[in-house]
Amino acid sequence: MASTPLTVDTINPKVLECEYAVRGEIVILAQKLQEDLKNNPKSHPFNEILYCNIGNPQSLGQQPITFFREVLALCDHPALLDRAETRGLFSADSIKRASEILTQIPGRATGAYSHSQGIKGLRDTIAGGIQARDGFPADPNDIFLTDGASPAVHMMMQLLIRSEKDGILCPIPQYPLYSASIALHGGTLVPYYLDEATGWGLEVSELKKQLETAKSKGVCVRALVVINPGNPTGQVLAENNQRQIVDFCKKEGLVLLADEVYQENVYVPDKKFHSFKKVARSMGYGEKDIALVSFQSVSKGYYGECGKRGGYMEITGFSPEIREQIYKLASVNLCSNISGQILASLVMSPPKVGDECYESYSAEKNAILSSMARRAQQLEHALNSLEGVSCNRAEGAMYLFPSIKLPNKAIEAANAAKTAPDTFYARRLLNATGIVVVPGSGFGQAPGTLHFRCTILPQEDRIPAIITRLTTFHEAFVKEFRD
Amino acid sequence: MASTPLTVDTINPKVLECEYAVRGEIVILAQKLQEDLKNNPKSHPFNEILYCNIGNPQSLGQQPITFFREVLALCDHPALLDRAETRGLFSADSIKRASEILTQIPGRATGAYSHSQGIKGLRDTIAGGIQARDGFPADPNDIFLTDGASPAVHMMMQLLIRSEKDGILCPIPQYPLYSASIALHGGTLVPYYLDEATGWGLEVSELKKQLETAKSKGVCVRALVVINPGNPTGQVLAENNQRQIVDFCKKEGLVLLADEVYQENVYVPDKKFHSFKKVARSMGYGEKDIALVSFQSVSKGYYGECGKRGGYMEITGFSPEIREQIYKLASVNLCSNISGQILASLVMSPPKVGDECYESYSAEKNAILSSMARRAQQLEHALNSLEGVSCNRAEGAMYLFPSIKLPNKAIEAANAAKTAPDTFYARRLLNATGIVVVPGSGFGQAPGTLHFRCTILPQEDRIPAIITRLTTFHEAFVKEFRD
Repeated sequence: MASTPLTVDTINPKVLECEYAVRGEIVILAQKLQEDLKNNPKSHPFNEILYCNIGNPQSLGQQPITFFREVLALCDHPALLDRAETRGLFSADSIKRASEILTQIPGRATGAYSHSQGIKGLRDTIAGGIQARDGFPADPNDIFLTDGASPAVHMMMQLLIRSEKDGILCPIPQYPLYSASIALHGGTLVPYYLDEATGWGLEVSELKKQLETAKSKGVCVRALVVINPGNPTGQVLAENNQRQIVDFCKKEGLVLLADEVYQENVYVPDKKFHSFKKVARSMGYGEKDIALVSFQSVSKGYYGECGKRGGYMEITGFSPEIREQIYKLASVNLCSNISGQILASLVMSPPKVGDECYESYSAEKNAILSSMARRAQQLEHALNSLEGVSCNRAEGAMYLFPSIKLPNKAIEAANAAKTAPDTFYARRLLNATGIVVVPGSGFGQAPGTLHFRCTILPQEDRIPAIITRLTTFHEAFVKEFRD
Repeated sequence: MASTPLTVDTINPKVLECEYAVRGEIVILAQKLQEDLKNNPKSHPFNEILYCNIGNPQSLGQQPITFFREVLALCDHPALLDRAETRGLFSADSIKRASEILTQIPGRATGAYSHSQGIKGLRDTIAGGIQARDGFPADPNDIFLTDGASPAVHMMMQLLIRSEKDGILCPIPQYPLYSASIALHGGTLVPYYLDEATGWGLEVSELKKQLETAKSKGVCVRALVVINPGNPTGQVLAENNQRQIVDFCKKEGLVLLADEVYQENVYVPDKKFHSFKKVARSMGYGEKDIALVSFQSVSKGYYGECGKRGGYMEITGFSPEIREQIYKLASVNLCSNISGQILASLVMSPPKVGDECYESYSAEKNAILSSMARRAQQLEHALNSLEGVSCNRAEGAMYLFPSIKLPNKAIEAANAAKTAPDTFYARRLLNATGIVVVPGSGFGQAPGTLHFRCTILPQEDRIPAIITRLTTFHEAFVKEFRD
């Protein structure tokens, strides 16, 4: 008997190493508390769990955009288009768009595997949307539709990382998909620190310094990840800053991996989203000058269709041979889900002025975005009024990432409990209020600082109560541990 | 300027190594010919491309099951459930099922990320379906819903493979997802040969021999892949054979990776599908005895919903610590798409006798399965009547994998064209007829033998014409190259 049952000592150590705090220990505890509440509604000092750990708007009550869902339902069951009753149930625009999409799908077969990059007609639509957004041409052959942005990020990491000698420059704090994917693919995360004091500023001098440090350790840096608008940090890059970043990547021969999934989530009048491709093209840089990948997702924006797993990456500046390899990687998984593909085409080409449903569509869209902006501001103000807490402006994305200064006694208590101090705080917050946030250590933070990430996504009428709960908890916590 | 633009010499060599013939060079050529035909319908001696390279039923005209699509459409746009007109457009059973599913989804939010393993209520339904199929209990906590079966296979390979010293026993011929995934994760494929002479028999003596050979080379074999019903080979394992395989894995401490995605596709009265879990449990083996993963997909069966990317794996016999690691891997990608999750629950719990729509549902299902059986038989007979071609019975799955003996002159011509002889044949077939098949070399084959894989999926009324085209081509090919 040569039995060798699987143990944590015999699995791939890269899996062990990988961490993903957004669904980590605090969330697992929250799920347990939720079970408790189901079995006994009085088991905790709150009656529900508020998941502020993840950018998942519809889980907190945000309603989907009607036009998008009508089109999806019609494409899921095309037989509806032949029935007279359908006109009473669906808008004329939805019927028209669904019919157009079905003609773009070979055989109208929404249940067939598509081209590995996604349905060509949908990629045409997306390329058109990018072009309208940027004012520069986009090529449908550069688009790879994926099940959300995550698989696209994994695909690029898989392509770029050969060993632990290959490094990827990542912001700190970062969205932990990047650290997890780099760990799983066996590479080295080369950190560059965002400057909290200047609103999470991204300094090229810091990029240079970290690149040189990595090189001196024998690490070959392959790519630079930029998340704009920032996650978890919420800043929106200025165009001038983006130009510096493009020049840095061009000069250093780095692939620029631009996470642009929050492109619709900008809340302040003095900032505007510019895609890195637009910035590079407006500098006169073309295909030969810079290798650039832009990630987009249907999970974010005002649509928040996380469960649909739609997204794409637009790749430019890669040779035909490299593109062939990326195509092969895509083809091993056959294709992304067709509903997600359709939705990606819809978010990049929503109803236009003059369309019959334009008014109701924009009313839904604007209500969501303006409410998000108000919620961001309310939560930011509330956080800044707490003792020892300071929070940068949420210019975009869906998060606040306040810095918290904890009393020494709290840090000692955390050490005694063998927990990171920010995890200690987040666990206490959860146990006292049912509010789920993610400790800053899950994103990385400058040494000696502590943070947590909290989404701005609870529905607006709930925000005052949340602020009250948070404030009451924080005051009691500070009192308990005051030095 | 330290510019280091990406070249094939500087990307991850594992990506270069990986091959996926099902969407490889023959398919890329087919796409080119299809473009030609679009631009000039007379550019080739056929007027359409027939994609027999991939198990993609709906791309060839198979219609989706009405009940499934009605439920999906209602879940995509739940507002329909509040409208009176809906009763005129959807069956009462679909409305009932969609309503039930929505109550299982927290907040009825089909646009929210779910639990990383999938929506709990849907996993309950799937576990119920497994239990009804096997007669042994199934636990919803053992189910991981995934975007088709492919990501589940990748997840297990990622868990098991530490380096090229780790081996996975795989059938030859095999579905190239396995070889691709093993290559991408840097492991070693340890081949075991199916015996074509005994209808692609799986002999435990061969497993033992290959395991010993691998061990003697210092390879640590971690798992055994079994595809049942077979892909590309179409055989259905006998229960007694499955028992031997289970005992082998138990004795050798191998994880049994059971690809059971064709469980509904059995066409011969003398064979029946038995899940490996049922076989193991009926032998008295429980959680502590054997680690077993069963892969299932909504892409196959009679439903053929490839574009929906739904599927799951059921994992049993893993310790809590290992399960935690698998959960973490699932959570990095957040969750699989909700439509695919819903569909996976539907295929594992379709309408039952007594349900209002049962009759129309089973009529659709039986029409598809009985037609597939007839098509398999017709194509098998036609292939066996060709000179130098011999084809085992398609007992299940969606493919035929005939052996072809090519004249020496054809092999010399292939060598001169620097092409594998089976690729040479497949390319000639495509150029002459528009029929796309996959060369046997893409799946692996015993040295000195040649094959191709052809699906049984063209619609039934097209089969006679396909057989004529294939026969005419083959006769001309043999004549051209006769020794």
